[in-house]
Amino acid sequence: MKVRLVKKILEANDRIAENNRKKLADAGVYTMNLMSAPGAGKTTLLQRTIKALDGRIRFGVIEGDIQGTHDAEVISALNVPVIQINTEGACHLDANMISDILPEMPLNAIDILVIENVGNLVCPAEFDVGEEIKVMLFSITGGEDKPLKYPLMFQKSEVLILNKIDLAPYLDVDMEKIKADAIALNPGLRIFEISCKSGQGLDAWVAWLEDKVKVSA
Amino acid sequence: MKVRLVKKILEANDRIAENNRKKLADAGVYTMNLMSAPGAGKTTLLQRTIKALDGRIRFGVIEGDIQGTHDAEVISALNVPVIQINTEGACHLDANMISDILPEMPLNAIDILVIENVGNLVCPAEFDVGEEIKVMLFSITGGEDKPLKYPLMFQKSEVLILNKIDLAPYLDVDMEKIKADAIALNPGLRIFEISCKSGQGLDAWVAWLEDKVKVSA
Repeated sequence: MKVRLVKKILEANDRIAENNRKKLADAGVYTMNLMSAPGAGKTTLLQRTIKALDGRIRFGVIEGDIQGTHDAEVISALNVPVIQINTEGACHLDANMISDILPEMPLNAIDILVIENVGNLVCPAEFDVGEEIKVMLFSITGGEDKPLKYPLMFQKSEVLILNKIDLAPYLDVDMEKIKADAIALNPGLRIFEISCKSGQGLDAWVAWLEDKVKVSA
Repeated sequence: MKVRLVKKILEANDRIAENNRKKLADAGVYTMNLMSAPGAGKTTLLQRTIKALDGRIRFGVIEGDIQGTHDAEVISALNVPVIQINTEGACHLDANMISDILPEMPLNAIDILVIENVGNLVCPAEFDVGEEIKVMLFSITGGEDKPLKYPLMFQKSEVLILNKIDLAPYLDVDMEKIKADAIALNPGLRIFEISCKSGQGLDAWVAWLEDKVKVSA
């Protein structure tokens, strides 16, 4: 019974996600579902990326959080359209939440919509929200055992961004193991190594993203 | 419909949790539900704590992970009874999972049972598993905005352990804000500041825990 119910919920979610994806594609909007554990640096990455592409790519952002408007305020200061979704307890965004607020997003005035998911390394990976690409951010402070312990998000993402590499000298983390295990789970995975603090590696990520958005337009 | 179902699941969970709690109390076992986001250092803390209390307190451990046996192997090397629960996708432990495997834990041979939950800052806080105390670990690398963004776990825990304080000089994190916001959410919260790497602050935590276990015996 429980299994069937979960499957039904996921099927309903997938139908709504398909509608979102069509609507976004019709409007010429490239859509990214940005996922990570809490505190990996999603909002800071977004902030740096939006600033780096200022005048070249027009962003829209949906901020998913259990409660609060902290992230939406940070992004709003960059003068891009932002909508905050408060899930009020739910640990992930689903397609219906996006469908509900999509009419409020000025799709004709943006090139890319970034959906910043709730900070959680588990459930967001299960719910398609209608994105074109899933990008996962991982803070290397989390340790090299995580790909094998939380495989689904590594498997479902097209891009893995390893953040906080400025802290590597002060950690015992085995970066090569993170990358090898992630690639073993998902051979097509594109990996970037960055520090949102020092700026290291950001140029390669920003150039890649700009290209992706322009190709999809 | 969905809301009623969730409520029913939580009510059923609470009944099973009550049974677990009674069974554990009858056996004279103090039970801790140890929760955190992925990579905050739960297993390392447990390792250090078990070693520090070797010969003084007898531990039993239940390791909750989506998949894999990494953590159980680490703890097993310390010669304490360990059971690994693989949730196969579920992002938290529930009372029924604990009830199922409790007969396999030698309750008469342990003083404290530590239940290391799945790494997730959201859902584990919603599910009582039959513990006497909820302890939450938070890595300061996660940033000072987290108590307000993920309030439930801070509210439901009796103890908050701030880990990785050895990294403080290399972060821009505002430790005072973390503590102030956590206390505002939960005025009775006991806070420890530790580094599992340098050992700083561990003595105070270990002494507090030893006292707790002995008082409850």
